[in-house]
Amino acid sequence: MKTHTHEFRVALHDSDAGGVMFFAHHFRHAHDAYEAFMASIGHPLDRLIREGRTLLPLVHAEADYRAPLRHGQSVSVHVSVAAVGSSAFTLDYRFVDDEGRTCALARTVHAHLDRDRGASAPLPAEMAAALEERRSRP
Amino acid sequence: MKTHTHEFRVALHDSDAGGVMFFAHHFRHAHDAYEAFMASIGHPLDRLIREGRTLLPLVHAEADYRAPLRHGQSVSVHVSVAAVGSSAFTLDYRFVDDEGRTCALARTVHAHLDRDRGASAPLPAEMAAALEERRSRP
Amino acid sequence: MKTHTHEFRVALHDSDAGGVMFFAHHFRHAHDAYEAFMASIGHPLDRLIREGRTLLPLVHAEADYRAPLRHGQSVSVHVSVAAVGSSAFTLDYRFVDDEGRTCALARTVHAHLDRDRGASAPLPAEMAAALEERRSRP
Amino acid sequence: MKTHTHEFRVALHDSDAGGVMFFAHHFRHAHDAYEAFMASIGHPLDRLIREGRTLLPLVHAEADYRAPLRHGQSVSVHVSVAAVGSSAFTLDYRFVDDEGRTCALARTVHAHLDRDRGASAPLPAEMAAALEERRSRP
Repeated sequence: MKTHTHEFRVALHDSDAGGVMFFAHHFRHAHDAYEAFMASIGHPLDRLIREGRTLLPLVHAEADYRAPLRHGQSVSVHVSVAAVGSSAFTLDYRFVDDEGRTCALARTVHAHLDRDRGASAPLPAEMAAALEERRSRP
Repeated sequence: MKTHTHEFRVALHDSDAGGVMFFAHHFRHAHDAYEAFMASIGHPLDRLIREGRTLLPLVHAEADYRAPLRHGQSVSVHVSVAAVGSSAFTLDYRFVDDEGRTCALARTVHAHLDRDRGASAPLPAEMAAALEERRSRP
Repeated sequence: MKTHTHEFRVALHDSDAGGVMFFAHHFRHAHDAYEAFMASIGHPLDRLIREGRTLLPLVHAEADYRAPLRHGQSVSVHVSVAAVGSSAFTLDYRFVDDEGRTCALARTVHAHLDRDRGASAPLPAEMAAALEERRSRP
Repeated sequence: MKTHTHEFRVALHDSDAGGVMFFAHHFRHAHDAYEAFMASIGHPLDRLIREGRTLLPLVHAEADYRAPLRHGQSVSVHVSVAAVGSSAFTLDYRFVDDEGRTCALARTVHAHLDRDRGASAPLPAEMAAALEERRSRP
């Protein structure tokens, strides 16, 4: 198990008139962390999309918000692999602020789609192995 | 029970290089639907935020994605009240495309926060009643 | 000359911690207005992009901000055709709030790109005519 | 004269169905660069907004797009101070891709607003000096 960490600073455009980061932007940052994670295990999303063979559409996303993130805060997003199935995988994200508090938890589920058949298909073996190797164990 | 409907057209900036609406933007549109719904029951969010007494931070959000939404598609978001608790409420969103297919389901949970104490507090009675009146029943 | 009008309400996610619409979002809304305008003259962008023959990349964008737009305000964006050249056209946008004040002006310049040659090319005749017909005259 | 450089990778959500970075997102990234620049000279925006004394609303923004930025590309945004007036300043941004090409140029003009009077006011002396010190000279 390895955890991948992605860092960002809450930008003015992340915040809203309520003074805190708009909830949907957590998902944008989680996806940035997902892109960085996939690149770190040798499967950068931009290459997957350009090649067009391996499509990994999100089938589920969720987040629990525990504490607001404010403009200017430094945030670490810790990505971990929660599950690797035959044709899907699940990633967890923990948003930790600069004082070490967990401010939000998020999860995304990605299915592997066979482009030609438009149906779910087994994950490419190499990708499944790379994900499995990084899977969190209780 | 009444359902509130919010309509939008998938804009170029909603779509991504994969050709479909980026998953986090569903939450942005769900929130637009939420704002329109709250205004329709007499509690527009901009007034609540400006007055600063009643804060309704999201504590949970989730979505299931069934079919991609593409640039140019017309989408209806049907908002319904799933639950009204003493200090929180839950809204459901159904994204229906121009051919009548349900392409995504989303849910948001909003807690009522007492600003001075920074703790959860009972929903204002009038708001709770307005939400309860529109609650979906099985 | 005809002016096309696009309306929106300043959403929570449009606003920032400063309490007003983040400046880059004016361009997002201007583009929504542009998409609606192009659809209204028979050249919807999603079809152009899907067909892939006529690419109209922006080569310039600018905006002048006169007054802030606040969360909840209703805004009309008036689109007009400022210029139609042989291989490019210029659109102007006027953002008017619900009290009739012009809060922002924006402009976008779109070049026509021949996809195969990757170079600028004459606008399709029918599109040039449709734009010319709506061109503002002093 | 010093140039501040801000780096980012074009994320999936930056790109659109046309396969390239949506033009308004250049302004979002320019603003990230602006925030990083202001922090680097001792005037972080989040503090300015929180303290509420010094408001620096954008009064003008513009960009020239020379080449598309694609999903996955690494981009450097070079910020420089183009002008420092008595109550406003102008920043320039150059977007350079990983092959050293200038893909876009942007400019923002920021006015200093006296909060109480709601009118333009002289820049705080310390800020004006810090900006002037970094001003580009031909």
